[in-house]
Amino acid sequence: MDLKQLGACLDAVRTSAPLVHCITNYVTVNDCANAVLAVGASPIMSDEPEDVEDITSICDGLDLNIGTLNQRSIDAMDTAAMRAGELHHKIVLDPVGAGASNLRTQTAKTLLELRHPTLVRGNMSEIKALSGAAGSTRGVDVAPSDATNQKNLAQAASFVRGLSRSWGCVVAVTGAIDLVSDGNRTLAIRNGDPIMGRITGTGCMLSAISPAFLAAGADDLVAATTAVCSMGVCGQLARSRMSGLDGTGSFRTYIIDALYNLTADQLVSMAQVEEL
Amino acid sequence: MDLKQLGACLDAVRTSAPLVHCITNYVTVNDCANAVLAVGASPIMSDEPEDVEDITSICDGLDLNIGTLNQRSIDAMDTAAMRAGELHHKIVLDPVGAGASNLRTQTAKTLLELRHPTLVRGNMSEIKALSGAAGSTRGVDVAPSDATNQKNLAQAASFVRGLSRSWGCVVAVTGAIDLVSDGNRTLAIRNGDPIMGRITGTGCMLSAISPAFLAAGADDLVAATTAVCSMGVCGQLARSRMSGLDGTGSFRTYIIDALYNLTADQLVSMAQVEEL
Amino acid sequence: MDLKQLGACLDAVRTSAPLVHCITNYVTVNDCANAVLAVGASPIMSDEPEDVEDITSICDGLDLNIGTLNQRSIDAMDTAAMRAGELHHKIVLDPVGAGASNLRTQTAKTLLELRHPTLVRGNMSEIKALSGAAGSTRGVDVAPSDATNQKNLAQAASFVRGLSRSWGCVVAVTGAIDLVSDGNRTLAIRNGDPIMGRITGTGCMLSAISPAFLAAGADDLVAATTAVCSMGVCGQLARSRMSGLDGTGSFRTYIIDALYNLTADQLVSMAQVEEL
Repeated sequence: MDLKQLGACLDAVRTSAPLVHCITNYVTVNDCANAVLAVGASPIMSDEPEDVEDITSICDGLDLNIGTLNQRSIDAMDTAAMRAGELHHKIVLDPVGAGASNLRTQTAKTLLELRHPTLVRGNMSEIKALSGAAGSTRGVDVAPSDATNQKNLAQAASFVRGLSRSWGCVVAVTGAIDLVSDGNRTLAIRNGDPIMGRITGTGCMLSAISPAFLAAGADDLVAATTAVCSMGVCGQLARSRMSGLDGTGSFRTYIIDALYNLTADQLVSMAQVEEL
Repeated sequence: MDLKQLGACLDAVRTSAPLVHCITNYVTVNDCANAVLAVGASPIMSDEPEDVEDITSICDGLDLNIGTLNQRSIDAMDTAAMRAGELHHKIVLDPVGAGASNLRTQTAKTLLELRHPTLVRGNMSEIKALSGAAGSTRGVDVAPSDATNQKNLAQAASFVRGLSRSWGCVVAVTGAIDLVSDGNRTLAIRNGDPIMGRITGTGCMLSAISPAFLAAGADDLVAATTAVCSMGVCGQLARSRMSGLDGTGSFRTYIIDALYNLTADQLVSMAQVEEL
Repeated sequence: MDLKQLGACLDAVRTSAPLVHCITNYVTVNDCANAVLAVGASPIMSDEPEDVEDITSICDGLDLNIGTLNQRSIDAMDTAAMRAGELHHKIVLDPVGAGASNLRTQTAKTLLELRHPTLVRGNMSEIKALSGAAGSTRGVDVAPSDATNQKNLAQAASFVRGLSRSWGCVVAVTGAIDLVSDGNRTLAIRNGDPIMGRITGTGCMLSAISPAFLAAGADDLVAATTAVCSMGVCGQLARSRMSGLDGTGSFRTYIIDALYNLTADQLVSMAQVEEL
């Protein structure tokens, strides 16, 4: 993949400033909104079934994140996704905690089957649960036995490619090594830093900014890859800025700072993308 | 307006420490609570219809923000506002996203008509939607075509003054130039910084701190102006503190810091208030 | 109490990384999640009655915080606590705002009576309301007339010891002086800083990290004391780091930083624990 495409996609977000409708969890929603703003797009949150059709209609993309799902928000997600589908908006599904409860697994499966997301993004435990494959769960974190590493990379990539074909959408499985596939091309991304797992919300933020990249970009795989690389690169930039008494509180601030200041040149020069 | 009144109103908040009941959105609620605390007041959040009468009864003011409204919170807002009205508490209505959906517009209109807020605060697109005037929507942001600028200032001021008279309350329309009117006096405020629109919550924080200023102050127009100027001045102070790798993450932290450290002298010397 | 036990308990959390199910308010939930991660544990938030049995089953402890309770979350708390009880998980009850509304007081009383928490943690006004003793309310803050101070310390300690015996659980009443009792031993803790009351969430964060310490520790009183001291020591560390233009925004970041960087040695050397 020509990495200049990533820079162009980031610039397109900043120029076109897409509106993103987020139905997301209340744990990381503020970080999601600020991340969407930091990359140059605008967020609007709405999870009342009576409200979501109007809201999603004026937006360019939709983020569905089941992190703190409830019966009302499940209805809202379905209604919003149906309307977004009619309008050919980009839809991102983040199956937070799939595998950790039956309700989460079933909700994510239903949205995947009926509402045809453009991109599914999760950790490997969640994606395995969504696919019906045997996996483990550690709540909203990846189970160590599921994590992608250098040793199981080829097998993991093949699994993700297969899911992308079977689901008919881009699949991004993020972790120490991220995998992104559109069924034809499959990429391994080696950006990011382990400290990203020590704050809540880096995955949610990635899912929230992704509809902006998908709406602004010409190609869904490139757009998803741009979002994944942007988050990873900003994780590295935020980590490298830590000093003295800084910890995860400061890191959380710095990663939003980095998203706000990220340039196309920076992204292109730091992105570590390998075509498999 | 004698700007010393603004300093006195800020000091009155710090001395009397009003309790503010906030029914607000889950996106910026943490920033709202910390902003209320930073100015010297105390927040309490409650949005369960069975809970709100008791809660609002022990408070001094009420903030109604429809940013992530749902059927339960709409009921809670109505119940709380009715009780707050009986107790002659100050009520602030923030019609977040009015114009972006029918539910938001109608909910805000109903609260305005039945529950007689002391202050309505929003951006120009929201206020136009609430008034029934033709306007545009860009979700929770002002539509560029609606924004107040030097060219349309007289017309915008006249519009806001008219609304204040017709609604029988103070109206504050915030943006690059803020307009505040009680139907008699109309003020243009030129504090703030464009970066305030690049984080979520500066409007919500302003609405959340406003009941504290209204409860502590002697005059509603002065109190609303104090709140608007405080937020704008702190936006400038936070912006001027940014350096190096700082971005919107740091700005968000700095604006709370500035609210906490703001003195009456600082406010009086930096407030840019023009009586129209 | 041998303070080395506190250091051992902190290290045990970092080593065993317990999963904590939090049903908590949406005001401070992000800080709670980041605090749990900062001490080395993992949080998962779920408040949908259909979801909570599965979620709590894979966790090691449960945090029940009624800060923004609603009918759905009340049901979820009861269901989760019943399941957690069957699994002999540690349960923490934080009766936020008990005494400020009938619904809060009754909900906290019901959970206390039926679901047998391991630890009840609140401020003195909340704990008095929960006990049926005459007290005052200032919303979610302690009423000045209820606060523990040097003068009423013996009486307050006796009250807390009595509650612990009567309720059959550890009771932690935090404030300028914290009191922790298991009915036999009663401790006064003099860590912390007044600025902790000027941000929202220091109490909620303490309650959220407590199930991790209880799950990792060998003794409930030691574990509760470790959590209380950790929060207080980190408040001091965060306060001592403030300079120049820093205010409560920065303090909030620094307290998470301090939790992340806290070492057993630091905790042992700074903990101010007096056995009464």
